[in-house]
Amino acid sequence: MITLINGQLQNTISVQDRGLAYGDGVFETMLSIHGQIPLLHKHMQRLHESLQRLDIQTNRIEENIELIHAHLLSDKQQIVKLTVTRGVGPRGYLPVKPCLPTVIIQISDKNNIDETKRRSGVSITYCETLYSKQPKLAGMKHLNRMDQVLAQMELAQGPFDEGIMFDDKQCAISATMHNLFLVNASCLITPKLDECGVAGVMRAHVLDLANQLNLDINVQTVTKNHINQADELFLTNSLHGIWPICQLNSTILPIGPVTSELMNKVAKVIPYGD
Amino acid sequence: MITLINGQLQNTISVQDRGLAYGDGVFETMLSIHGQIPLLHKHMQRLHESLQRLDIQTNRIEENIELIHAHLLSDKQQIVKLTVTRGVGPRGYLPVKPCLPTVIIQISDKNNIDETKRRSGVSITYCETLYSKQPKLAGMKHLNRMDQVLAQMELAQGPFDEGIMFDDKQCAISATMHNLFLVNASCLITPKLDECGVAGVMRAHVLDLANQLNLDINVQTVTKNHINQADELFLTNSLHGIWPICQLNSTILPIGPVTSELMNKVAKVIPYGD
Repeated sequence: MITLINGQLQNTISVQDRGLAYGDGVFETMLSIHGQIPLLHKHMQRLHESLQRLDIQTNRIEENIELIHAHLLSDKQQIVKLTVTRGVGPRGYLPVKPCLPTVIIQISDKNNIDETKRRSGVSITYCETLYSKQPKLAGMKHLNRMDQVLAQMELAQGPFDEGIMFDDKQCAISATMHNLFLVNASCLITPKLDECGVAGVMRAHVLDLANQLNLDINVQTVTKNHINQADELFLTNSLHGIWPICQLNSTILPIGPVTSELMNKVAKVIPYGD
Repeated sequence: MITLINGQLQNTISVQDRGLAYGDGVFETMLSIHGQIPLLHKHMQRLHESLQRLDIQTNRIEENIELIHAHLLSDKQQIVKLTVTRGVGPRGYLPVKPCLPTVIIQISDKNNIDETKRRSGVSITYCETLYSKQPKLAGMKHLNRMDQVLAQMELAQGPFDEGIMFDDKQCAISATMHNLFLVNASCLITPKLDECGVAGVMRAHVLDLANQLNLDINVQTVTKNHINQADELFLTNSLHGIWPICQLNSTILPIGPVTSELMNKVAKVIPYGD
């Protein structure tokens, strides 16, 4: 693992960093293949939007992206985690201006243990752990991730690969570490994320591809009824691409034609299994 | 500032600490007066309960409390922040067992700039920033604190000292860094915190005192109507004790008899102004 903090080879941060104290920051987890990050543009778009919404000002992102590329290896798949916190500050929730954000780069090798999940699909259940709603953070990949930690701890008690999380109105938001897609009568459906949830980069990429394929697309409120009645279900994230859902609780599902077509499209840009 | 990490004089933590990555941990902010922490017992009760609920196992809290006492000064008021994270872990929301929690002690001097706020009272408004609901974290002082950061950023745009935060059903939860109390027809009222909010140590102390004073106590759903119609309003936290609310939006409020009586009671155990 290579770790750089504000451009220096270093693996510790100040205990006064607001990323630790309050989770005051955001991160991107990106896949590098042959020394390139295929969806870099979309990652940067989300990162910059999130930093702007949080009023975390830094002009050092581009130089850190150059630094990342200088450390990527052309002969393997790697995972690049880029974290930006508001930086060190005194005690107290209110940020002191100006802040000096902390930019953390972590590069590690990707193993391929998940390859069978993409090929054969995954089993999924419904989580009891709620997704907490905060419209001011909706869509961001911020550092307040206890909902996901708790949901994963719940999931680890059972046999399922993933779990769908709901808000307190029983609307599906996403799985614990993937976005959720449904296919119903050839229409591609994914939960709207205006009150909570991470607007995944692979989710955005799949929506782009669906547009190119002239699929009907609905970004909408999704209930258990919608999920139970779907023809196809699949999950997305940047590291895994598309994972078909082959089992929902006790119901076995086939890998359907829309899922397969989108997987083929994704594979042309991002050769996951290579 | 004195900083100790896992017992060592040190002020950096690993970038792989789950406290930074996910906010996977809890903290206590405690007031020390003359080398003693008056409400230590209540802080420890909440800390141990929170760690148990999060399944963060450590038997090193007691030795860290001894360490804190060894560093406290008898001639000044100090602020002791004790943070416990789940410790270093690999990438991924699911905690790997066993974990080796990180215990962070930060001791700093308390300034007395807030003294006039306790004597004269504070002005308060209603925040637009919602308090996000997560029943599995309700009551804990965990490290996912972006709700409070966002609310304080909102508050900084206006002239008010503090702001009351509501959940998405318009129920008051607390102020951004204080618990909220209402007095109505001699009944002491505070919001119930079963879906979100920090169950403050000073809140618990005030409820104990109210019990001793044979006050009627209601821990209940609190709406704007309740607040607007209250005879007295006050805020609590461990560092400030009780702050009377002397202004709610444009309405001026007197410091009432129940607030004053409780303040006198608190002052007997915790001589804030000394």
